[in-house]
Amino acid sequence: MSTVGPVKRLALIGVGLIGGSWVLGLRRAGLVSTVVGCGRSMANLDTARERGIIDDATTDPREAVRGADLVVVAVPLGAVGPVLATVRDDLAPDAVITDVGSAKASVLADAAEALGEHSARFVPGHPIAGNEKSGAAAAFPELFDNRRVILTPEDSTDTVAVERVAGLWEAVGASVARMSAAHHDDVLAATSHLPHMLAYSLVDTLSRWSDRDEVFAYAAGGFRDFTRIASSDPEMWRDICLANRDALVVAMDRYMADLSELREQVRAGDAAAIENLFRHARETRERFMATLES
Amino acid sequence: MSTVGPVKRLALIGVGLIGGSWVLGLRRAGLVSTVVGCGRSMANLDTARERGIIDDATTDPREAVRGADLVVVAVPLGAVGPVLATVRDDLAPDAVITDVGSAKASVLADAAEALGEHSARFVPGHPIAGNEKSGAAAAFPELFDNRRVILTPEDSTDTVAVERVAGLWEAVGASVARMSAAHHDDVLAATSHLPHMLAYSLVDTLSRWSDRDEVFAYAAGGFRDFTRIASSDPEMWRDICLANRDALVVAMDRYMADLSELREQVRAGDAAAIENLFRHARETRERFMATLES
Repeated sequence: MSTVGPVKRLALIGVGLIGGSWVLGLRRAGLVSTVVGCGRSMANLDTARERGIIDDATTDPREAVRGADLVVVAVPLGAVGPVLATVRDDLAPDAVITDVGSAKASVLADAAEALGEHSARFVPGHPIAGNEKSGAAAAFPELFDNRRVILTPEDSTDTVAVERVAGLWEAVGASVARMSAAHHDDVLAATSHLPHMLAYSLVDTLSRWSDRDEVFAYAAGGFRDFTRIASSDPEMWRDICLANRDALVVAMDRYMADLSELREQVRAGDAAAIENLFRHARETRERFMATLES
Repeated sequence: MSTVGPVKRLALIGVGLIGGSWVLGLRRAGLVSTVVGCGRSMANLDTARERGIIDDATTDPREAVRGADLVVVAVPLGAVGPVLATVRDDLAPDAVITDVGSAKASVLADAAEALGEHSARFVPGHPIAGNEKSGAAAAFPELFDNRRVILTPEDSTDTVAVERVAGLWEAVGASVARMSAAHHDDVLAATSHLPHMLAYSLVDTLSRWSDRDEVFAYAAGGFRDFTRIASSDPEMWRDICLANRDALVVAMDRYMADLSELREQVRAGDAAAIENLFRHARETRERFMATLES
């Protein structure tokens, strides 16, 4: 773990589960002095102040970033570019800027366009953590314990800035990996974005079922677990779809091809093929779960 | 809740999570004297005996049912017909027979063919409970607390037999509903069988991804929840697919049509349509969750 000096003034643009939890973790580690929170809703900012996440609150991003040595942009992906363009002229000359978005190629492109020479100190990040809750009220300092954070800097990114962001993630319990933005987007399309599409779509399908109330009445625990991610924030997930749509469409197409094959095996009553698929899936998942627990 | 007299001799064909848990619940309620367990694996029967689920064990279903006043068939759906045909001539003349299968029209057809005049005392049942575990080792008496059990008797089914089975489910904490087998199969195709197909298929798709190890390494908690049901017993689920394939194919087709529509919205970058779908799905799920908790 790298040694990391404290942040004097942290500007948190978007005070939700992810940004709020990172700040709470940094406070726990004694690694931040003052936090200015910026958001659209004063109610959420008040909650954040009451919970000790932020010291000052503003609805103006330009005011928030003035004098900040670290700027954390934790807004839905569609707002990252506009926020960066808005604050550009108010950034301190040595400010490190980072984000927490679930797609990275689009963020890099937005930063390059919006930030000009500041873009060398923009470090794209994605903590693989979170749950279906959102807002400052849901934040807690242990969210990143033993979780992974992926950073996707480019060759031109300032290495000191990258080390600083990596150190601040490690200080809250996360392990940090680095990869290209394109690779990140492919991997996350498969493992996170695709499952969200499947869960949202399942609830949508069932909500239009003729026996809809009965369908939900007889849903059991498996259904509850399976659809938990369909309670995720709609605006955030809309933006993830748009920001990573190429990789997501590829993942959805692969999935639909495989599901069609299973559908055909069910229709044909192909017992051996069905059992093979189920057995293989169970073994794969259990191998994966064993890795997680080891 | 109906008053219900104790079972003198219960034959449990298939000693797994569901049958084992029902017996443990009946023992807790003082509603069963002797339980004879029948299975293919002596190791599992030994476990069942050690855990106090069964008193006697046999691998011969005919021996198991002799003298039993209640016969519980808790085997994968494909084995229900063969088991009933095997035991038919050894059933006591007033024995009540029931099952716990996840599809009901196929079981009714199997029973009518296999049991002859005994089929009037065959009560098809389906407890909406269970988890991804299986075997006698996983059984526990609280499994059916506050869960629903669906019975799908026909007009010709002996009402005393139906009341008896209903009472024995209520005695272990379940609430009992009655509906037609066809209706049961449609509802369960949507709410249980379809989600299992989606989860199995997702793990299968990801297991064939080129970056497979990395894909699983970066999977987070949402993925773990989402795919939990892909750890379910492959043989049991193969049989559910075959037994309820008509309703399941209809459900898969509806789902794939909806998912294709979402895929097209993602490809086209239709922000409003995507957000509407996600918002509607989240609201639907949260309304459903509120019902469950109330």
